[in-house]
Amino acid sequence: EGKHSVSQETIQSLLIEAANQGKQVVRLKGGDPFIFGRGAEEAEALAKAGITFEVIAGVTAGIGAAAGFGIPLTSRNEAQSTTLITGHQCEKNGKHNWKALAELDSTLVFYMGVKNISEIVSGLIKNGKSSSTPLAIVQNGTMVSQQIFISTLENVEKELEGITLKTPAVIIIGEVVNHHQRLQKYVTSIPADYVDPVGDFGFDIWKNEVVVA
Amino acid sequence: EGKHSVSQETIQSLLIEAANQGKQVVRLKGGDPFIFGRGAEEAEALAKAGITFEVIAGVTAGIGAAAGFGIPLTSRNEAQSTTLITGHQCEKNGKHNWKALAELDSTLVFYMGVKNISEIVSGLIKNGKSSSTPLAIVQNGTMVSQQIFISTLENVEKELEGITLKTPAVIIIGEVVNHHQRLQKYVTSIPADYVDPVGDFGFDIWKNEVVVA
Repeated sequence: EGKHSVSQETIQSLLIEAANQGKQVVRLKGGDPFIFGRGAEEAEALAKAGITFEVIAGVTAGIGAAAGFGIPLTSRNEAQSTTLITGHQCEKNGKHNWKALAELDSTLVFYMGVKNISEIVSGLIKNGKSSSTPLAIVQNGTMVSQQIFISTLENVEKELEGITLKTPAVIIIGEVVNHHQRLQKYVTSIPADYVDPVGDFGFDIWKNEVVVA
Repeated sequence: EGKHSVSQETIQSLLIEAANQGKQVVRLKGGDPFIFGRGAEEAEALAKAGITFEVIAGVTAGIGAAAGFGIPLTSRNEAQSTTLITGHQCEKNGKHNWKALAELDSTLVFYMGVKNISEIVSGLIKNGKSSSTPLAIVQNGTMVSQQIFISTLENVEKELEGITLKTPAVIIIGEVVNHHQRLQKYVTSIPADYVDPVGDFGFDIWKNEVVVA
């Protein structure tokens, strides 16, 4: 029985039950509990049940993905803000305001959006976002197996044809993606044996496989 | 001579100099280096100098502030996204697109924006954001001394009169702020001696002083 099939209600019941048995309970989540997590629901359930708790912030996927490939999510000249958005619910009743997203001077980071890439691209381009805006898809961000796929809004769908992305993946859209490209350019001038020792950490921006379309 | 007066160029020179001496250099920053940090400039300077490095993601102030007070930055029913924005540069040439920010279904998190609260409020209300939208100012977020100030877009300026906020502070604007209010309501029903042990951790959502306007 896969853990993914445990309902949110069951998780909350388990938390409350264990706490009421006097146990110190740790509910460990990937990323940050308050960004596309269910932290709020769990906090409220605990509070209602009279159970005290503490919420520890985490590194959310978009920020981890950016760090792994040298992409600043904000940048004085290119993006005054960054917006972390669900790409998952694009087709449901909660439609995104593509016009506002396209007009905002913001790096856009879509979570769980690979399946909806077509809607994301058309939503932004139709509303005036430059079709040459750089786009990165970071797969398995923060893991040793992380990979990056670089493209642009107008080319990404064509370039993804025949490529199977590893999930989870986040999509980073904005001029800031060019920083990664610039870094890569410098890196090619560094002798390979100079780079090697860093690989021992198991995680760095140089040693990860780069998928270039 | 305060460390704050060290220029970005000096920091980069120090990093490169120490690395070239064969040292393992750690550049430790508060928050995440790629969100209103200067991580990109430092990464590029190192890459240009032929020095390998690794970027470790951090918990950015807005996410830490939200965790400390039970505020989910995204929420299925209230916010499909969250936008981390500089409040510092509101008055400079890089004007915010208030219309897009007001129309976006997004929790807005302003960094370094307390001094520009007036511009933030008027920019959003004039462009159609509901004046009753809840607003929280989290001071000293993630620290034992963290505090929260709760208000609304229309009332915050009046309610801040005579109050000196502790900085650094982040401003969280959106319906999700109500989660904090709901949690507080439940918490008042928990006996004080039941809450006490949690205080030993030095950081939790119950023990922090709450400044209510």
